Amino acid sequence: MANDTNLGSSYNGYYRSSPKLENIELTHVGPGTACGEYLRRFWQPVCLSEQLHDLPLGLRILGEDLVVFRDLSGDIGLLHRHCSHRRASLEYGVISEHGIRCCYHGWLYDVDGTILETPGEPAESAIRKKLCHGAYPVIEYKGLVFAYMGPLSTKPDFPIYDSMEMPENEMVPYAIDMPCNWLQVNENPMDPYHAVYLHSRATGVQFKQSWNAEGIVEWHWMPNRVGIFLTDTRRWQEFIWVRTAELFPPNFAQPSDFNQDASHETFFARACASKWIVPVDNTNCKLIAWRHFNDMIGSKPDYSKIGINKVDFMGQTGEGRSFEEQQREPGDYEAQVGQGSITIHDEEQLGKTDTGVARLRGLLRRHIRMLAQGDVPPRPDLNTEGRIPTYTGDFVVKVLSVVGQEELQQRDFGRKLARILVDTLSLGFNDRQAEVKRRLLTPD
Amino acid sequence: MANDTNLGSSYNGYYRSSPKLENIELTHVGPGTACGEYLRRFWQPVCLSEQLHDLPLGLRILGEDLVVFRDLSGDIGLLHRHCSHRRASLEYGVISEHGIRCCYHGWLYDVDGTILETPGEPAESAIRKKLCHGAYPVIEYKGLVFAYMGPLSTKPDFPIYDSMEMPENEMVPYAIDMPCNWLQVNENPMDPYHAVYLHSRATGVQFKQSWNAEGIVEWHWMPNRVGIFLTDTRRWQEFIWVRTAELFPPNFAQPSDFNQDASHETFFARACASKWIVPVDNTNCKLIAWRHFNDMIGSKPDYSKIGINKVDFMGQTGEGRSFEEQQREPGDYEAQVGQGSITIHDEEQLGKTDTGVARLRGLLRRHIRMLAQGDVPPRPDLNTEGRIPTYTGDFVVKVLSVVGQEELQQRDFGRKLARILVDTLSLGFNDRQAEVKRRLLTPD
Amino acid sequence: MANDTNLGSSYNGYYRSSPKLENIELTHVGPGTACGEYLRRFWQPVCLSEQLHDLPLGLRILGEDLVVFRDLSGDIGLLHRHCSHRRASLEYGVISEHGIRCCYHGWLYDVDGTILETPGEPAESAIRKKLCHGAYPVIEYKGLVFAYMGPLSTKPDFPIYDSMEMPENEMVPYAIDMPCNWLQVNENPMDPYHAVYLHSRATGVQFKQSWNAEGIVEWHWMPNRVGIFLTDTRRWQEFIWVRTAELFPPNFAQPSDFNQDASHETFFARACASKWIVPVDNTNCKLIAWRHFNDMIGSKPDYSKIGINKVDFMGQTGEGRSFEEQQREPGDYEAQVGQGSITIHDEEQLGKTDTGVARLRGLLRRHIRMLAQGDVPPRPDLNTEGRIPTYTGDFVVKVLSVVGQEELQQRDFGRKLARILVDTLSLGFNDRQAEVKRRLLTPD
Repeated sequence: MANDTNLGSSYNGYYRSSPKLENIELTHVGPGTACGEYLRRFWQPVCLSEQLHDLPLGLRILGEDLVVFRDLSGDIGLLHRHCSHRRASLEYGVISEHGIRCCYHGWLYDVDGTILETPGEPAESAIRKKLCHGAYPVIEYKGLVFAYMGPLSTKPDFPIYDSMEMPENEMVPYAIDMPCNWLQVNENPMDPYHAVYLHSRATGVQFKQSWNAEGIVEWHWMPNRVGIFLTDTRRWQEFIWVRTAELFPPNFAQPSDFNQDASHETFFARACASKWIVPVDNTNCKLIAWRHFNDMIGSKPDYSKIGINKVDFMGQTGEGRSFEEQQREPGDYEAQVGQGSITIHDEEQLGKTDTGVARLRGLLRRHIRMLAQGDVPPRPDLNTEGRIPTYTGDFVVKVLSVVGQEELQQRDFGRKLARILVDTLSLGFNDRQAEVKRRLLTPD
Repeated sequence: MANDTNLGSSYNGYYRSSPKLENIELTHVGPGTACGEYLRRFWQPVCLSEQLHDLPLGLRILGEDLVVFRDLSGDIGLLHRHCSHRRASLEYGVISEHGIRCCYHGWLYDVDGTILETPGEPAESAIRKKLCHGAYPVIEYKGLVFAYMGPLSTKPDFPIYDSMEMPENEMVPYAIDMPCNWLQVNENPMDPYHAVYLHSRATGVQFKQSWNAEGIVEWHWMPNRVGIFLTDTRRWQEFIWVRTAELFPPNFAQPSDFNQDASHETFFARACASKWIVPVDNTNCKLIAWRHFNDMIGSKPDYSKIGINKVDFMGQTGEGRSFEEQQREPGDYEAQVGQGSITIHDEEQLGKTDTGVARLRGLLRRHIRMLAQGDVPPRPDLNTEGRIPTYTGDFVVKVLSVVGQEELQQRDFGRKLARILVDTLSLGFNDRQAEVKRRLLTPD
Repeated sequence: MANDTNLGSSYNGYYRSSPKLENIELTHVGPGTACGEYLRRFWQPVCLSEQLHDLPLGLRILGEDLVVFRDLSGDIGLLHRHCSHRRASLEYGVISEHGIRCCYHGWLYDVDGTILETPGEPAESAIRKKLCHGAYPVIEYKGLVFAYMGPLSTKPDFPIYDSMEMPENEMVPYAIDMPCNWLQVNENPMDPYHAVYLHSRATGVQFKQSWNAEGIVEWHWMPNRVGIFLTDTRRWQEFIWVRTAELFPPNFAQPSDFNQDASHETFFARACASKWIVPVDNTNCKLIAWRHFNDMIGSKPDYSKIGINKVDFMGQTGEGRSFEEQQREPGDYEAQVGQGSITIHDEEQLGKTDTGVARLRGLLRRHIRMLAQGDVPPRPDLNTEGRIPTYTGDFVVKVLSVVGQEELQQRDFGRKLARILVDTLSLGFNDRQAEVKRRLLTPD
């Protein structure tokens, strides 16, 4: 009986109460789903190295029940959780010199799924030849374990972003469980306006005073539309300060430094974190990431605050706070999980400030449909050092204010920076740092 | 394979084990359901005033997720829980001078759903004009907050029952959560026979010794069949004692005083509570009510025992008792919740004692179908003071017993009272009290 | 997009990730299901006598909500949980001289479902004549309560297995809840290979050192295929040692003694437990059993360790151990529950060692389909004492090893024992003990 013509009237709750459906194409991730197939074409982090010890670890990734372990020879296995023989859980398996042995009847699986032993079966049994246990290739890299869960024929090289090989940089892994669909967490980096409210004006300043300044935000396509980055430009005392952020589809993003205070000139101070939002299933995800610490970052690592379900800034996890505390000072966790298990896009009202969110959804949809049609979604080009060049950073430059033209001046500065970042993509890390600085200091 | 011909044999469990379905027409309450639409045509209490403080309160009513709050200017807002912008939960919203501000991006909603601010959006943005956030009208009345969740065109005046404006009466609000369908709680007042067993003979006397007396029960239609009331008449020492009870559809009822001991003549001692059974969703409801305290009531308020999930008589809540204690002395809570999430009418065996329950279901069904066909279910007429006159009370009158005719005498007395109550409906409160007494003392 | 041709390759997880369905025919047990109908043709234990005291006990069996109680005259009633009148839960009922009285309106039910009283209803009410409450016949036997939940016309005699009436035998009841489908627990006895791994090699010896010896296993049909038994034969020092085990469909099994150490000659040392795996619903079951203690058994009863959710060998319950402890030393409980709520047969890879499991499933399927077609699945013949003769035991016989022919010698010995057990089925208990010994000691 609801009547859409009443949506603009006050006290219209009755007319807006019909339940609507979630966006299945972008949010369902199990085997065989469109989005699940797409996500399976990328290396995904699944756990931290420190979670691998003398017992196997049960995991759920993309709707699949898995077990991960490091065998006694040091190799990591990521296997389907239930034994291929009688489906006992390999969480109770015994880690062996090579692979893992099921507790129930002793079948032994190598890390690649090869069935090494089927005790009790006749020597001539064909089982071991005709079947492998479900397994996925893994790569361990700087304290994170990555897996590739797609078809082997399309397995890409493991992608190394330039921020993962910065000089004099310490990387501290962490992982945070979130009981909501992956997309609502994944969209956050393309939504800079939330910082002004959630992290500053809503209940008090969560990071630095400077976060309260509203900037001029513009979203930019990476070349060949392989991803999106944004410039967020503002006047800050004698400086123009640009924060950038980026998202490489489907689910890799980097934020600029939460502790940056723009107290002096800075040129391409790099991201303070590199993070993936990995779907656990349709209604759960986990953020798996590194915090970066180096001379560009405004804090030192406090190891006691970074790890499993913890990170060194507020409002990022569901642990350790009462509901009242969450209400009094909500953070990203409350904002994103509070949208519900799977938010309903048809109930949203996107505005100009949501341009990044809308673009990201469009880009994901485009890639998902390309794949479904047999095409290959584009990937970023590598730089001369074989890394994927990134865009996230802080740029603080002394620029005299042009009275009456401040907004135009800031917009032009942001656009100039965006051009420079794109123009310098192919350079090696140090060369790019220098070239970005040189061009930013060069008047147009 | 079940065979109905065996239902009357002993050890027939096998033949009665096929699961049956609940009565969807009377029990499902979400948006768009027949019963949900019907319930939405009435003002419903949703919380207690005392639950509104400096943080918003999440609620679920009629299957809808909502948030309620009192803004800094004192107005109460009842809004759809998820922000119209990006669906963050307004449980984390910041209560403002006027309305509430979403924590995520700062959209500000007035208590009527008007979007007052969309920070970051251009000044000329049309969003605020074309859309209001889902909101419901509310009225705060004597410590309860009421909402109207139906179409605005059919919004009725807020109904004031005469018992809500009695002289020298103190009203103490309370609310009790019950994990079962609303109807099984709602039917209880029309079922006086449970008092004899549940509250007296089953496990011991829960209220007064007098409850153990079985009375002569008769159910009466209110004029124009707007509701049902009953008379429960018994001999008690030198008195004839009539307890009445009533139900105004869909879900307002009043019981007579649990502590009445009929120790002296009494004329229309009014209800000890006024209560609504409000569906939370299909399998949960909450009782929201006032306890009345005045010269007619046999107890004084113990405020420590009346409030959120507590009331000053036993067996009404699920809190504070072990399962063994519940088993040893079950109350209304155990009887009603124990019927299951949604009871199955097709598995019941209604008898003569269930006449009130059967009538109530028939009346609800009739009103639900009237509404579905575009008709307006009837509502009670107001008295000369603009109140809805009610029927619940205790009547204790000295009457000599007519030996050998006791049953007939009691039945006639009950019927006489029912006539008097109906005849005096239009009178003001005090006039009716006097007139009922006068006529009860007048021999026929 | 999965491609079955890749199942034998390494890292093939992607190709094995499509979810498959459970075997509904063998695992679903509610009213009207094929397997549920089959299970309902047998007496099933439902609780321990010690669970019956002054309060009724709620149960769930074969997907039906029930209540069991012993009335004040000593009779046991097993009734549908919800009152036939208004469906209040009889968990809150008042146990009476005969039967149980509902707390809500006082209807009184005899243990056979006869409605003895409907208080408040007119004396001439026909309700009591036309309807009985759902009830099931029960038999109490040596501390267990058994029920028959099928149609009365096919109710079999209560079956007494010979092990339930052994001389000088103490029987200690116990019951263990398991949150998984009944079949995965029920199959375990026909799977002797798990003992070598799960109970010995996987994480350490759980019972006796001797369990680590792999035997020669052969499965045998009982006459007329009424059930399956197995012989598990091995060389143990100067002895040939045969352990047998049996399963009478649908769900009765007996294991040989866990504490047997084969240190001396032994002839038909009987089962250490008699157990039923009773479905609670599709995803829960309970093991209800007796432990036997007599001169043949290598342990004395420790009553503190046998009862509700406990038994005197490790890894059998979900209580009392952390997940880490379960991982470090998994037992039957972890192996079986870890297969998931309902395991997926289509994901298994059965081998020669799973012959017993495969045979059992085939036998259950055959019986289920016979019943569905109106035929009667076969039942075992009774011995001269009116008992069902059983096969489970330990047999330890001094036999010189025939060098180079050990395997053949053990196989022949196991087959000889199987023949003897079948040949002697009709004998009384003591006669059979003697005859089995005599023939085992007689050279062929």
